[in-house]
Amino acid sequence: MPAKKKVMVTGGAGRIGRVIGQVHGDRYDITSYDLKESPGLRSIVGNLTDLAALEQAFKGQDAVVHLAADIRVESPWESALPNNFIGTYNVFEAAKRAGVKRVVFASSQHATGGFYLDEPYKSIVDGRFKDLPKGYEPLDETCPIRPDGYYGASKAFGEALGSYYKDYHGLSSLHLRIGWVITADDPTFSPFALSLWLSHRDIAQIVGLCVDAPASLKYDIFYATSDNKWKIWSIEKAKRVLGYKPQDAAGEKWTQKPIPAADR
Amino acid sequence: MPAKKKVMVTGGAGRIGRVIGQVHGDRYDITSYDLKESPGLRSIVGNLTDLAALEQAFKGQDAVVHLAADIRVESPWESALPNNFIGTYNVFEAAKRAGVKRVVFASSQHATGGFYLDEPYKSIVDGRFKDLPKGYEPLDETCPIRPDGYYGASKAFGEALGSYYKDYHGLSSLHLRIGWVITADDPTFSPFALSLWLSHRDIAQIVGLCVDAPASLKYDIFYATSDNKWKIWSIEKAKRVLGYKPQDAAGEKWTQKPIPAADR
Repeated sequence: MPAKKKVMVTGGAGRIGRVIGQVHGDRYDITSYDLKESPGLRSIVGNLTDLAALEQAFKGQDAVVHLAADIRVESPWESALPNNFIGTYNVFEAAKRAGVKRVVFASSQHATGGFYLDEPYKSIVDGRFKDLPKGYEPLDETCPIRPDGYYGASKAFGEALGSYYKDYHGLSSLHLRIGWVITADDPTFSPFALSLWLSHRDIAQIVGLCVDAPASLKYDIFYATSDNKWKIWSIEKAKRVLGYKPQDAAGEKWTQKPIPAADR
Repeated sequence: MPAKKKVMVTGGAGRIGRVIGQVHGDRYDITSYDLKESPGLRSIVGNLTDLAALEQAFKGQDAVVHLAADIRVESPWESALPNNFIGTYNVFEAAKRAGVKRVVFASSQHATGGFYLDEPYKSIVDGRFKDLPKGYEPLDETCPIRPDGYYGASKAFGEALGSYYKDYHGLSSLHLRIGWVITADDPTFSPFALSLWLSHRDIAQIVGLCVDAPASLKYDIFYATSDNKWKIWSIEKAKRVLGYKPQDAAGEKWTQKPIPAADR
């Protein structure tokens, strides 16, 4: 049996990190790098702003899955700057210095979240349609960068940095514009959640596909949601290039409730 | 006679800022914001890292032309972070707080400079062709972000921030992916310079077109070079949308010399 791949998950104690640990804990040799211990995972407690600690932690790893960030869509600049911008630079630089071959970067649909201001996307996420408009096509990865905050801008920044480290430092970097991973794995509390939902097993699947993608796949960006009816973002590229086969699909019925406390 | 527009030029003492001051000094009421005084311009001496000073300086201005940066293509992260990333955030945030309606951002072709690694662009900038390859088309603004360093990444970041401030704070922001403005205005020292050249009168023209563009033009990105034979980047969009009419065009003859000291 070949040795398990060593996978470092930054943010391993967070919402998505815990799912990755639960689903892939037997398949990969996972270590969490986070501000706190991740239950059930080997854990290194440290800060993203500590480049030397990251470099040390990344040595010998086959892949780094970079999830850690201030994940609030409305992160103020003062927090996005150290946690998302500097932290992301530190992760790529540490991966380069430590000789890691593959980075999987948790980007976000918020890198292009400005499109929610436009029709028909606005009415879709507001739940104003009974059915999809005639001829409707979801947006794909060719749409321009259009962040809806510093958080979204930091995700676009991570995609740009990944391209630089791919072109000039031989790193392979794959970027998932993640929809919405919900703690209770239930998107029926709002039309926006129905549109953006990425189920626990679907995020685990697509992250695994990125970890295991051939080394020849040097760089790419993929929208990542489940196969939801009301999707804004096309998942065809992830299916075609990564072989993503979403197992879940949000339907069209919701009961408007507040965002669950764990997901705010 | 209507009052002259008040235009704040960050980096007014720099290579491009001095050209803007010389060409447009009578047409606009220009103030320079730079680390040093700009000869012949009203000058505020200050640092881009000082948000409060920027806000104060921007009050009452009709437009801000943001040129100031560490302009080295190979800027180390430690310098790009304060001067280009934080500095650019501060400029947009100060413009918003001061009620400035229009920002003109000096982006750069280095936001997509990774394409110089690919053919036929590599051979063009290396001067290996006698004529343009058959069917050759320059790249346009639909090509993906692909920076060749932290400098280029900081320019892509400024474009993303401009989009955010346009969508959510009512700013109009126009972004010029500037080619190469050369102190002696002579690009004949290398094939790369022949390809990228943006002459003094052409940079002055296109910056003026951005300052004066109608308020309805909320956001856009334009490659900006002179009408050079060996161009990598299409200037058709700038012609079409801004009415840019380049007056200069680099030909095909060069004598290989070192980059002029003033332009390193």
